[in-house]
Amino acid sequence: MISTPLSTPLHDAPLHDPALRGFASDNYSGVHPEILEALANANGGHQVSYGEDVYTGRLQQVMAGHFGPGAETFPVFNGTGANVTALMSLLPRWGAVICAATSHINVDENGAPERVGGMKLLAVPTEDGKLTPELIDREAWGWGNEHRAQPLAVSITQSTELGTLYTVEEIRSIADHVHARGMKLHLDGARLSNAAAALGLPLRGFTRDAGVDVLSLGGTKNGLMFGEAVVVFDQQTAAQLTYLRKMNMQLASKMRFVSAQLVALYEGDLWLRSASHANAMAARLRAAVEGLDGLSITQATEANAVFAALPPGAADRLREKFRFYDWDAAKGEVRWMCSFDTTEEDVDAFAEAIREELAGYRR
Amino acid sequence: MISTPLSTPLHDAPLHDPALRGFASDNYSGVHPEILEALANANGGHQVSYGEDVYTGRLQQVMAGHFGPGAETFPVFNGTGANVTALMSLLPRWGAVICAATSHINVDENGAPERVGGMKLLAVPTEDGKLTPELIDREAWGWGNEHRAQPLAVSITQSTELGTLYTVEEIRSIADHVHARGMKLHLDGARLSNAAAALGLPLRGFTRDAGVDVLSLGGTKNGLMFGEAVVVFDQQTAAQLTYLRKMNMQLASKMRFVSAQLVALYEGDLWLRSASHANAMAARLRAAVEGLDGLSITQATEANAVFAALPPGAADRLREKFRFYDWDAAKGEVRWMCSFDTTEEDVDAFAEAIREELAGYRR
Amino acid sequence: MISTPLSTPLHDAPLHDPALRGFASDNYSGVHPEILEALANANGGHQVSYGEDVYTGRLQQVMAGHFGPGAETFPVFNGTGANVTALMSLLPRWGAVICAATSHINVDENGAPERVGGMKLLAVPTEDGKLTPELIDREAWGWGNEHRAQPLAVSITQSTELGTLYTVEEIRSIADHVHARGMKLHLDGARLSNAAAALGLPLRGFTRDAGVDVLSLGGTKNGLMFGEAVVVFDQQTAAQLTYLRKMNMQLASKMRFVSAQLVALYEGDLWLRSASHANAMAARLRAAVEGLDGLSITQATEANAVFAALPPGAADRLREKFRFYDWDAAKGEVRWMCSFDTTEEDVDAFAEAIREELAGYRR
Amino acid sequence: MISTPLSTPLHDAPLHDPALRGFASDNYSGVHPEILEALANANGGHQVSYGEDVYTGRLQQVMAGHFGPGAETFPVFNGTGANVTALMSLLPRWGAVICAATSHINVDENGAPERVGGMKLLAVPTEDGKLTPELIDREAWGWGNEHRAQPLAVSITQSTELGTLYTVEEIRSIADHVHARGMKLHLDGARLSNAAAALGLPLRGFTRDAGVDVLSLGGTKNGLMFGEAVVVFDQQTAAQLTYLRKMNMQLASKMRFVSAQLVALYEGDLWLRSASHANAMAARLRAAVEGLDGLSITQATEANAVFAALPPGAADRLREKFRFYDWDAAKGEVRWMCSFDTTEEDVDAFAEAIREELAGYRR
Repeated sequence: MISTPLSTPLHDAPLHDPALRGFASDNYSGVHPEILEALANANGGHQVSYGEDVYTGRLQQVMAGHFGPGAETFPVFNGTGANVTALMSLLPRWGAVICAATSHINVDENGAPERVGGMKLLAVPTEDGKLTPELIDREAWGWGNEHRAQPLAVSITQSTELGTLYTVEEIRSIADHVHARGMKLHLDGARLSNAAAALGLPLRGFTRDAGVDVLSLGGTKNGLMFGEAVVVFDQQTAAQLTYLRKMNMQLASKMRFVSAQLVALYEGDLWLRSASHANAMAARLRAAVEGLDGLSITQATEANAVFAALPPGAADRLREKFRFYDWDAAKGEVRWMCSFDTTEEDVDAFAEAIREELAGYRR
Repeated sequence: MISTPLSTPLHDAPLHDPALRGFASDNYSGVHPEILEALANANGGHQVSYGEDVYTGRLQQVMAGHFGPGAETFPVFNGTGANVTALMSLLPRWGAVICAATSHINVDENGAPERVGGMKLLAVPTEDGKLTPELIDREAWGWGNEHRAQPLAVSITQSTELGTLYTVEEIRSIADHVHARGMKLHLDGARLSNAAAALGLPLRGFTRDAGVDVLSLGGTKNGLMFGEAVVVFDQQTAAQLTYLRKMNMQLASKMRFVSAQLVALYEGDLWLRSASHANAMAARLRAAVEGLDGLSITQATEANAVFAALPPGAADRLREKFRFYDWDAAKGEVRWMCSFDTTEEDVDAFAEAIREELAGYRR
Repeated sequence: MISTPLSTPLHDAPLHDPALRGFASDNYSGVHPEILEALANANGGHQVSYGEDVYTGRLQQVMAGHFGPGAETFPVFNGTGANVTALMSLLPRWGAVICAATSHINVDENGAPERVGGMKLLAVPTEDGKLTPELIDREAWGWGNEHRAQPLAVSITQSTELGTLYTVEEIRSIADHVHARGMKLHLDGARLSNAAAALGLPLRGFTRDAGVDVLSLGGTKNGLMFGEAVVVFDQQTAAQLTYLRKMNMQLASKMRFVSAQLVALYEGDLWLRSASHANAMAARLRAAVEGLDGLSITQATEANAVFAALPPGAADRLREKFRFYDWDAAKGEVRWMCSFDTTEEDVDAFAEAIREELAGYRR
Repeated sequence: MISTPLSTPLHDAPLHDPALRGFASDNYSGVHPEILEALANANGGHQVSYGEDVYTGRLQQVMAGHFGPGAETFPVFNGTGANVTALMSLLPRWGAVICAATSHINVDENGAPERVGGMKLLAVPTEDGKLTPELIDREAWGWGNEHRAQPLAVSITQSTELGTLYTVEEIRSIADHVHARGMKLHLDGARLSNAAAALGLPLRGFTRDAGVDVLSLGGTKNGLMFGEAVVVFDQQTAAQLTYLRKMNMQLASKMRFVSAQLVALYEGDLWLRSASHANAMAARLRAAVEGLDGLSITQATEANAVFAALPPGAADRLREKFRFYDWDAAKGEVRWMCSFDTTEEDVDAFAEAIREELAGYRR
């Protein structure tokens, strides 16, 4: 009576080629094997839903280990959910957020900050995806003027959407600047591990200890199946997040499976191993292609991304074999992302293809 | 330099007792083994993110198999996300939704339909969680009157939050009633499989074929790790869902892992096996306790839930061994949910405990 | 070159019959002559816009005279604007408001509280439009449960949408009940003057002094051209209102003309004269028709409205001469509103028409 | 029992000096005498509330006279209300609006477009407050990409916030550009009359006839007490506005008094007389001060505003006698607005003061 529509069950075989990798995005990659094991270990039996499970309990400890006493961690589904929920916890209803024009919240979230969060973004153009006190001041004014959406938070991304890094001094200087003006500082850490690996610093070293008030902590781009978290360092903000996460539709019922992944990533050094590797692959790629005629590197390669400009047509021809994205098509600028699963062979083969493509190129 | 906060890696051993199960909720349960296998099979290599992967492609076919040509499926993270996104696709900004007072959208989503979706809910009290044309008409009026939030959609839940079922004729009659008034019909199918199993009908038999316009298709409560979907049957609504899902922060980057679970659940008969089993366990529990002095069954047991009233104190004593929730504490009413992993032994042991608790009870 | 579309200038003659009045609504009436004079006196010269004018300054004094030191008054455009803005000032983003099912915020504002204010309304059916502690408790629960929109404010209307009144003891009892549970109390005073006149109390006697936290103060229904105000009694809430009013699009640029009306209404006894008169006209109407065969009074006549039930067809026939609204068409219930400009002759003529209509009626 | 807080009734005398005028804003001015007469004529008797009155009916005719058959006019309270409501009528929930960085919607509405309207603004820097097809194209891209808030409307202001004007050809060129890309064109006409007067064109000549889809029609800045309108030219958009206006809290109960003002302004040539006069006063002011040492004109003087830069300290000293605003304090740039009630004597006295202030200035 009830039909079985298709005959080949997925639990018997994959539908895709698990050997195929490219340079499009760190979320094209899959799940780290240790994460899969952790998921299997978290399975079976019943656990209280919505976060009262032992894995979420353990996660609190793991994160307190990283960020110190008082850190509270709220697992959510994805990065947009983390960012919008985090920013809402910092802002009254009339708040605005100063951010880089290239920030994920400004260009990649289809207005969720505005539509779901009800906040206004005050986006500032930057050279390298990084705000500075001076750039912040372009929009940091008008407090008390009811006609102006009140700039009460600043959001920075580390590592940035352009593969660049803030030094810990830069973040501290921004935090001081922001706090001196009565604003709060949010850090979008979708690639926080890559930043920590590159800086050689513990996670708290350039976040909580540098003055960050609330953190979007990444997981998916560093080998999780799904799962990010909002991490806060004061009780008052934490109390808000309980409700904000739920009303923002970011509260997982079987939360143990989000938390178990985050535990597995952050309780040991998996986060660091994976991020260091991805960074190293980007450095290897950059080293292999830098200086080629026709190619120019357009951003510092400080984390797991390489930004380069190519001659007209070159990107499209390369994409016949390796997937990656244009960044600014008008300028021929492309983005090459490395991931925890990018291999040296992947990089070398790609670099070789680039070399071949540009072989005959003369300026 | 970078510390490792805890020493026992989660990928080596579980933190919880996988043998412990209760009757609190079908989302206390874990992941069906076949789903875990499917997730492993979907892993490895790179797949395009945000839904252009082969697993999401396969899911479209699987769902077209269930719901017929033209069905379009949008995987999302959770049930609240599915419901709010689905309802927004049916409504203009000035729309209102008629729903049962006990519906999940009205009582369990912290106002997400209002806050994220900007819609007004017109909640109607019911006896058994089920709307009827007559009940709908209590709020189905005032079209064209700009002062009234316009009732332009009706939302029903199948199986309901009270463990009851609509017959296919009841849904058809509601759909006709709703459509005749220019409204649309949404069905919250968080437990759609349980309904199908109980009715002995294909999934489309009491949804699309009965006049449902948009469907929240459940997964998590029937053995997925996470993942639900919005299913629609017309192109115009589908075109909206692309954007609504993203702005509602429900678009998974590594969507292959949501889709692979839904494929594994729905491509064969896993959905049906699991749901039939959970239903059978509820029936077994009801049969074992019905008629006991001091216990009264308060709702029809038509899916995987048993609702009963107990004498004062009994529920708390029973909860020392088996976890479950009060439904209406003032009336001594409790809810016992069965899941895909509930065993006959679980049920029998629980029934025995209830029998013992009520042994000395005389009215 | 630039055409003048119509030839009869409005500033020479009215387009309507200024002698025609009915019983439809107190906002069918026009502007009290003393208000028009005040508007003319406020005209001429330049005044700082957006509230820094002398008329708004005077309004603060006038209202402090009524409500005592620390009262802060925020003029807005209309009642929906006042209610939504006032409620937002009492609620975090996850708040819900308990209100009577018949309240204006629930049935007459097209969901503005939900859509603009992002709040959930928890509407409770009542007999007479009045909440009680017991009725409030039907929805006053679930604090700390993130799944439930948090009930953090209660809204009552005085006089109610059904023309009934809370006694000062009733309001005090509600306020104590509400405050004891950590909630706040809002009072929709679109017809506050009618209530004060009926109770024989100063405005603060049954608002601030009875425990009301924030007040929507009416003007339009008592003879203003337009203009209401939010009145609060603490600095913290006031600080929020500055921004909420603006972002809710309720900040008048030429605010002097809103404030001048409110000053003219409330600085002397115009508010009381007008409201007392409207109340008296309702009492006169009720006295004239009560006891007629075929007519039953359905609500207490405590302010400026009479609610009555008529035999089928009677209302429509009466409406050929006097405009008024059905309240509950299914029950034959109608609403007759009196206004500051209703005359004894209006009432007597209407009562006579009712008497004639029901003359031949026998039960 | 009920106290009368203050003893001097406002209806006897003004509180301010009606002879005092400055150059701060056209909404510092009061109400044109013909408007006050129209308000008095619209008073008395009962009129159906919420827009079914004869004055609103007449307004439809007046506006059809200006804008042609099919134009539908929705009176609202203020400019922010008009803009947000108008833009919502053009956009799906996932829409974004391209606008000049200096536009009122971007800088003066405390994020109401984002917060109430749920839209994202894509603000583009301009030299003179005017968009061009090229400037629009900086943000007009990404359709179909669900990650990007979809640019589906463009908003221009005429005359602009910088006192400049679009020619009719410029608007037509923008409209064609916008429509060719599937977008809609909104025009913020808070100072539409000033533009028409300056261009010597009928109101429709550079709006509907030039391709504008929806219009915010100004009133307050041109001599009304309050009142603007949204004007649309197609039935489908109009049908939405009925509900949007109400839910946006912009529906006046005694709408006759908004409509009567708009009728009085637009049925004859009052709009044109007043705007022409204000423009002439700006021209007179500019002519009187242009070329003074120390003063530079910073924008074209095409409507009723003069923008100028002054030496440090000069603005503050001038403000001791004449009120006006800084525009860009860092650059010494100020804005001088003329109004319908600015007199030649006002201008001459102000120019003389400027001349004196700059008398000793040498570069």
